[in-house]
Amino acid sequence: MSKIFATIITIGDELLIGQVIDTNSAYMAQELNKIGILIKHKIAIADDEQEIIYALNEAFKSSHIILITGGLGPTADDITKQILCKYFGGKMILHSPTLEHVKYLFENVFKRPMIERNIQQAEVPDNCTVLKNEKGTAPALMFEKENKICIAMPGVPFEMKWIMQEHVLNIIQQKFDTSFVEHKTLLTAGIGESFLAELIKDWENNLPSEIKLAYLPKFGMVRLRLSSFGNNKNILQQKLSTEFEKLKLLVKDYLIVDEDLPIELVVSQLLKKQNKTLSTAESCTGGSIASIITSHAGASEIFKGSVVSYSNSAKHKILNVPNEILQTKGAVSQETVELMVKNCIELFNTNYAIAVSGIMGPGGATKDKPLGLVWIAVANEQKIISKQFQFKFDRERNIQHTIITALNMLRKLIVEDKIC
Amino acid sequence: MSKIFATIITIGDELLIGQVIDTNSAYMAQELNKIGILIKHKIAIADDEQEIIYALNEAFKSSHIILITGGLGPTADDITKQILCKYFGGKMILHSPTLEHVKYLFENVFKRPMIERNIQQAEVPDNCTVLKNEKGTAPALMFEKENKICIAMPGVPFEMKWIMQEHVLNIIQQKFDTSFVEHKTLLTAGIGESFLAELIKDWENNLPSEIKLAYLPKFGMVRLRLSSFGNNKNILQQKLSTEFEKLKLLVKDYLIVDEDLPIELVVSQLLKKQNKTLSTAESCTGGSIASIITSHAGASEIFKGSVVSYSNSAKHKILNVPNEILQTKGAVSQETVELMVKNCIELFNTNYAIAVSGIMGPGGATKDKPLGLVWIAVANEQKIISKQFQFKFDRERNIQHTIITALNMLRKLIVEDKIC
Repeated sequence: MSKIFATIITIGDELLIGQVIDTNSAYMAQELNKIGILIKHKIAIADDEQEIIYALNEAFKSSHIILITGGLGPTADDITKQILCKYFGGKMILHSPTLEHVKYLFENVFKRPMIERNIQQAEVPDNCTVLKNEKGTAPALMFEKENKICIAMPGVPFEMKWIMQEHVLNIIQQKFDTSFVEHKTLLTAGIGESFLAELIKDWENNLPSEIKLAYLPKFGMVRLRLSSFGNNKNILQQKLSTEFEKLKLLVKDYLIVDEDLPIELVVSQLLKKQNKTLSTAESCTGGSIASIITSHAGASEIFKGSVVSYSNSAKHKILNVPNEILQTKGAVSQETVELMVKNCIELFNTNYAIAVSGIMGPGGATKDKPLGLVWIAVANEQKIISKQFQFKFDRERNIQHTIITALNMLRKLIVEDKIC
Repeated sequence: MSKIFATIITIGDELLIGQVIDTNSAYMAQELNKIGILIKHKIAIADDEQEIIYALNEAFKSSHIILITGGLGPTADDITKQILCKYFGGKMILHSPTLEHVKYLFENVFKRPMIERNIQQAEVPDNCTVLKNEKGTAPALMFEKENKICIAMPGVPFEMKWIMQEHVLNIIQQKFDTSFVEHKTLLTAGIGESFLAELIKDWENNLPSEIKLAYLPKFGMVRLRLSSFGNNKNILQQKLSTEFEKLKLLVKDYLIVDEDLPIELVVSQLLKKQNKTLSTAESCTGGSIASIITSHAGASEIFKGSVVSYSNSAKHKILNVPNEILQTKGAVSQETVELMVKNCIELFNTNYAIAVSGIMGPGGATKDKPLGLVWIAVANEQKIISKQFQFKFDRERNIQHTIITALNMLRKLIVEDKIC
């Protein structure tokens, strides 16, 4: 086995003017990584013949596998198919199975008449293998050259994902003798990146050469990732496990979870295991905590609902915070969040609740209540824990920090409950 | 004036294993574009000396400006600084103003003792210009070579953004005689990409060569972007405006807004202009509509709150949907969403409300209620409009389609109200 490299080429002017954030290449990289393929480069280029040829030439120098997305649609700015056809020396032909599929989609799914332009989706280079795209009209195209492969897929994320799972990953595994790659990730909170580095430096300096450590800080948490790469799967797995256990012990005071899990899933899984439920009362986060929890399948098992009390009247009317408290102590106060969390538990009849109220910016600050001031309360049926925070970021980051901090406070409360 | 090109290099193994989605390069591209700089390539590479040198060599071939992010932190996997120092032929020295700044941050902001590792943040190559990073400990570094510039910035997004605004954009505008670039974007809904292309093809075929059209489809909407580039600002602006007006007329039946605005801001601005307020009652979207509206500053002027009724008991207790309706018609039914929306308006005392209830998947479907079935209702004080949708995607996309569809139904209702 030797290292097999891939280059990911994303095509589209919208990527180069920053109008669209590329999420496709991260997905492709993850999936390739799982089957032992290393990513050499990810490159974004314009819808331009010269650029596409440049990127292909460079990719063939360094990689065995080239994955391309974008520019396969039905409109005039979609030129990828024609250029690949020319690059690999073919000519365009009509592909009957694709035409049948396009017709089927228009008749049965889109329920719209087909037009000439849609028929063109069924034209393909005669020197490629056509990979069916069940989710859309543009098929994927696979070209082979000097034992290397180049696959072009549509840029629509769910079409690309389907094609990756249905075709691309299988083709790669059949064609290449892939190496072993494994990552182990843990999540810490409450310690900065450089202090963490100091804490583990002796261990880090003595890591075996085939194991690499990375620090991934985000919104007050740091993920640590150990990666191993090589030929002997058993030995590598054992080494990786040994080092990972050592690392866990070193960071145990800050450890949230020893998997690559976002904190909302850590909390959801804790609740699910104990058959407990959660509700939220959100002011400054505007429903983001509820939204992040319910973005994952199965949330209804643990999550009962939320009151987004973005106005004082909602805090009073739905969450029963007395107007007197709102006037004397203010919406951003310990008294208010404690009443919010207590009444949230009662309203939704849940085991746990989170309440947040703060000033996210850019407006809303007063002399006594500066920008970034946030009160967070978490509670179970017996107790309420509330804390004040002073974030110093912009609106988006203040919201993100509030979400993470609240979820981590809840996590601690659940874990303590478990121990008691 | 001639075309000035930039290459954006992002450094970090986390980008190549897909653990992190790169949002930095989109921001940098947007900001460069505004001042007339074209992006040649965006490339992501590993924390590896050879890779960094390869990317620099390639970038110097095609671009006048090279912007780098990542690998400037305090930990062992951060190697960018040392490699740039070597590449441009310098040696490392201690930079006193940076050391003072790092000390200041630790004493006054982080309120933690400083360690040796943090002092290293103040070491810089002696052959670069140090650009102060007020938001963090790692400064940006600018190298110059053959009238081209290369600037390395930290990968932490808010630090990079501050450095871009404070230093990089000014430096580029002073150093380069930039061309004129302008984009105009409009948003359509209710028409597919290929039908849109058919509708405007005669106009598209006759576009002046200096104006380019792009189609950007997303969640049932299509944005159309016109881009112009050249030397004569006045003529170009006039041509762009003329073509944009023609385009608006051609797509008028599907036009949502003639700016590059997300739909939630279109709705918020309509409400703000008319001094009206909104609340939401969300089941399957789990607070995402509230969250997306409140992610923008100034939301409290128009948004009063939301009930995320993720359980039947919440629908009953807070939104007054009778248990009989929930049992006979079900939570996902016209009767339920209409009661939700009506009672939401009353509860929050708003002019408008949105209510949604559906089955987002992967679980939750029944024989009568398939996966992706969603009921959406929008209302003002006088009328309720409700519609059933059948989305056929995965959980994430079903949620996104529901958000966009609901916001667009509300937009139509507000616009109709205005006309009446």
